[in-house]
Amino acid sequence: MQEKGFRENWLDKLSPFQMIALFYLMAVTISCILLGMPVAHKDGVDLTFIELLFTSVSAVSVTGLTVISVVDTFNTFGIFLLAFVLQFGGIGIMTLGTFIWIIIGKKIGLRERRLIMTDQNQVTFRGMVRLMIEILKIIIFIELIGFIILSTYYLRYFPTWEEALLQGFFASISATTNAGFDITGQSLIPFKNDYFVQFIQIILIILGSIGFPVLVEVKQYLLTAPDKRKNIRFSLFTKVTSLTYFILVVVGFLFLILLEWNHYFAGEKWHEIIFYGLFQSVTTRSAGLATMDVSMLTEQSQLIMSALMFIGASPSSVGGGIRTTTFALMIIFLLTFARGKRRIHIFRREIHDEDLFKAVTVTIMALFICFGATTVLTITEPFPLMPIIFEVASAFGTTGLSMGITPDLTTTGKIIIILLMFIGRIGILTFLFSFNTEKKQGEYHYPKERIIIG
Amino acid sequence: MQEKGFRENWLDKLSPFQMIALFYLMAVTISCILLGMPVAHKDGVDLTFIELLFTSVSAVSVTGLTVISVVDTFNTFGIFLLAFVLQFGGIGIMTLGTFIWIIIGKKIGLRERRLIMTDQNQVTFRGMVRLMIEILKIIIFIELIGFIILSTYYLRYFPTWEEALLQGFFASISATTNAGFDITGQSLIPFKNDYFVQFIQIILIILGSIGFPVLVEVKQYLLTAPDKRKNIRFSLFTKVTSLTYFILVVVGFLFLILLEWNHYFAGEKWHEIIFYGLFQSVTTRSAGLATMDVSMLTEQSQLIMSALMFIGASPSSVGGGIRTTTFALMIIFLLTFARGKRRIHIFRREIHDEDLFKAVTVTIMALFICFGATTVLTITEPFPLMPIIFEVASAFGTTGLSMGITPDLTTTGKIIIILLMFIGRIGILTFLFSFNTEKKQGEYHYPKERIIIG
Ligand SMILES: [K+]
Ligand SMILES: [K+]
Repeated sequence: MQEKGFRENWLDKLSPFQMIALFYLMAVTISCILLGMPVAHKDGVDLTFIELLFTSVSAVSVTGLTVISVVDTFNTFGIFLLAFVLQFGGIGIMTLGTFIWIIIGKKIGLRERRLIMTDQNQVTFRGMVRLMIEILKIIIFIELIGFIILSTYYLRYFPTWEEALLQGFFASISATTNAGFDITGQSLIPFKNDYFVQFIQIILIILGSIGFPVLVEVKQYLLTAPDKRKNIRFSLFTKVTSLTYFILVVVGFLFLILLEWNHYFAGEKWHEIIFYGLFQSVTTRSAGLATMDVSMLTEQSQLIMSALMFIGASPSSVGGGIRTTTFALMIIFLLTFARGKRRIHIFRREIHDEDLFKAVTVTIMALFICFGATTVLTITEPFPLMPIIFEVASAFGTTGLSMGITPDLTTTGKIIIILLMFIGRIGILTFLFSFNTEKKQGEYHYPKERIIIG
Repeated sequence: MQEKGFRENWLDKLSPFQMIALFYLMAVTISCILLGMPVAHKDGVDLTFIELLFTSVSAVSVTGLTVISVVDTFNTFGIFLLAFVLQFGGIGIMTLGTFIWIIIGKKIGLRERRLIMTDQNQVTFRGMVRLMIEILKIIIFIELIGFIILSTYYLRYFPTWEEALLQGFFASISATTNAGFDITGQSLIPFKNDYFVQFIQIILIILGSIGFPVLVEVKQYLLTAPDKRKNIRFSLFTKVTSLTYFILVVVGFLFLILLEWNHYFAGEKWHEIIFYGLFQSVTTRSAGLATMDVSMLTEQSQLIMSALMFIGASPSSVGGGIRTTTFALMIIFLLTFARGKRRIHIFRREIHDEDLFKAVTVTIMALFICFGATTVLTITEPFPLMPIIFEVASAFGTTGLSMGITPDLTTTGKIIIILLMFIGRIGILTFLFSFNTEKKQGEYHYPKERIIIG
C-alpha cells in the first residue's frame, strides 16, 4: 500500500503534458523492441540502433521518413508489427489507452480524462470518453472500408490474393493514419497513372487528417433525420479547421500547377496534371505518400511545399505541424489587427485571448525550432540548403515527404530529424509545457508601461 | 481659400501611416532627381532608370545595397548629394520635417506631432517636439566628432587633405546613419587590420542604431549632477532595447567565432578574430559595412547573420528589420506563456496587450513578406537559395550586407529588393496600416468560443 501510494504520488507530480511525453517515449521504446526483433526481419538484415530508433520514432509519430527500405527490411510478420505501430501511433496512445481502460472495466476518472483531453487537444471534458470510443470506431470503420476496396482492386496488380490483401491492408492503414510508409518500395509512384487508387487514398488521407471531432460531428449530422438537421450546429473548431484544410489544399494545388507547368508537368496531359497536383497538395497536409519525385520539382515548389508541411494538418488528427487552426488564427489575427480592431471574430464567434496566445506561442516556437534544426544540419550535413529545409519541414509536419537525403544523414542529422518528428507529433504546446514543473501561482501585477514596437 | 480647404481635406483623409508612406515616396522621388542629375556623375556614366531608383531607395532607406559602384558613378558633387540623401533618410523625414517647421516658426500642432510620433514610433505626445530637436542636435554632434576624428586620422591613408576630409565626412555620415554606403569601393575591407578605424565606426554605428530615445536619456543622465542621478529613471523602452541590442551583438559575435573558427578565421591571430567577429556582428544590426567578404563565410554563419539582419536594430533608430523590442517581446512572451503565466513582465513593468499584438503582427507579417520575396526570387533569379535568403534579410533589415548577387539581379529581382528596403524602412506597422482607410469603428462582440490550437 505504501509503495502504491508513493508511485501514485510520483505520477501525480507529473503534469498531463509531461505524462503524454512520457507515454510517447514508452511507445517509442515498445516500438523499438517490436521492430527490432530478428523474427520480424528478412534474412540477412542487420539494423543499427540508430536505424531502429529512427524507424520507431517515424512509425510512432506516423511521419514516414525512413533511413531504411521497409520492403527490404521487414518480412510479412514485421509488416504486421509495423502496421500495428502505425495504428498505435496514428490514432493516439491516449485513444487506445481509453479503450483499454474501458474494456477492462475501469471507470474513467477525471485524471485520465484530462490526459486524453490534452493529447487530442480537446478543451471540454464532457463527452470525452464517448468521443474516444467514437474515434476508435470511426477509424477502424474507415480502414476496413479502405482495406476491402483497395485489396479487391489490387488483385489486378499483384499475382496472389495474399499479396493483394497484404498490400491493401497496409495501404489502408498507412493512408488513414497518414503514416506515409509503403511496402511497394516506391511510395505510390507505381500507381501514378491509376486515378482510382489515388482517389481512394486521397479520401483515406483526408479522413485521417481532417481531425476526429470533425468526423464525429459529420457522422452525427449524417445519422440525424434530414428534417431535424437544421438543429445541428457544427462547432467553431470543425468550421475553422475544415475550411482552412481545404483552402490549403486548393492553394497548394494551384501553386504546384502554376510553378511546374513548364517544368515537371511539361508535356503531361491535363488530367495527369490535375491528379499529380491534387495528390501532391493533399499529401503535404500530413500523409507523405508521393506519386512524383519531389526532388525533381522546382526550388520554388519545394519552398511552398515546405511551408505547407510546416503548417500541417488539423489538430486532433493524425497529422503534425503547427496545425491548421493555429495558422488560421494567425492569419485572421493579422487581418483583424491591421484593420485596427482588437477582437478576433470567426464565424460569428469571438476568439479567446488565451487561444490566440497559444497560436502565437506555437508558431514562433516552431519557427525557432525549425530554424535551429536547419542551421545545425547545414553544419553537420554536406547537402544544399533546400533539401535540408524540406526535410526539416517534413519531419516537423510529420509528413514524411523526402528529397532523398534522409538515408544519407550523419548520426547527428538523424537524431535531429528524430527530435523534430517527436516534437511534431506531441505538439509544440505539450513539448513546451512538459518543461514546466511549477504549479500555477497567483499572478501578481506590475504597473504597465508602453514600449515601442517595430 | 476654397482650394486650400480642399487640399487640407484631402490630406486630412490620409491616416498618419499613409502620410508617412507618402512622404517616403516623395523622398525617393527627390532622391532620384538629385542623384540622376548628369552634373553629379563622372564622365561617361549612364544610369538606367532601375539603377537610379534602386540607388535612391537604398539611400533614402539607408540600406546600402547597390547595383552600381558608388565611387565609379558619382563625382565629388554627387558624393555630397548622396551624403545629403543618407542624412535625410537616416535621421528620418519626420525629424527634418519638424526641424523645418520649427525654423520657419510654424507652431507644431497635434496633427504634426501625431505624424512624428508614428514615424519614430514614439507613443507619448508630451515632449515630442523637444525630443525631435534633441535628435537632430545629437546626430549632428555625433557626426561632427566622427568626421573630425576620422578625417584627421585618414591623412595617413590618403595623399591629399581634400581626399582625407571627403572620405572622413562620408564615412562618418555613412556609419552614423548606418547607411553602409562607401566611397572606398570595397566597404571597410581596406581597413580590415586598422582597429582604430573599426573601433570609431563601431561606436558611430551603435550610436545611430541604438535608438534616439536612448541617446536622449543617456545624454540627460550624463548632464545631471552625479549626486542627483539616482532620481533619473530610464524608460522601459531604453532598458529593453539596449539590453536586447547588446545581447544580439554578443550572440552574433560568439556564433561567428564558433562557426568560422576552422574556416574563415583559420590561421588568423586572436585579435584579428575578435575584431572581425565583433565588427561583423555589430554591422548585422543595421550598418551593412563589412570588413570581410560575407560570401566566403560558411552557410551556417550566413543563416545566422540573415536571422540577425531580419531582427535588425532598435525602433526609433536609423535601422530596419522587425526591431529589437519586437524580438525581445516575442521571446519574453514565449518564456512567460510556457511557464503557464499570462502577464508579461519586464524590468518590473507590465507589457500592454496592445504592444504584444503589435509585436506578433510585425513578426508574422515580416516572415510572410520575406518568405514570399524569397520564393519569387527563386523563380526569377538563377542563384542558389542561400544568397537569396541573405539578400532578402539584408534588404528587409535595411542592413545592406551582400553576398554579391544584387548587381546581377533581374529587373523583377531588383524591384522586389527595392520594395523590401522600402517596407523595412517605413516599418511593417506603417506598411500594414497604410492600407487601412477605414475609420475606427465601435467594436461589437460575438459570443466567445474555444478553439483547439496546435
Ligand atoms: K506522414
Ligand atoms: K544599412
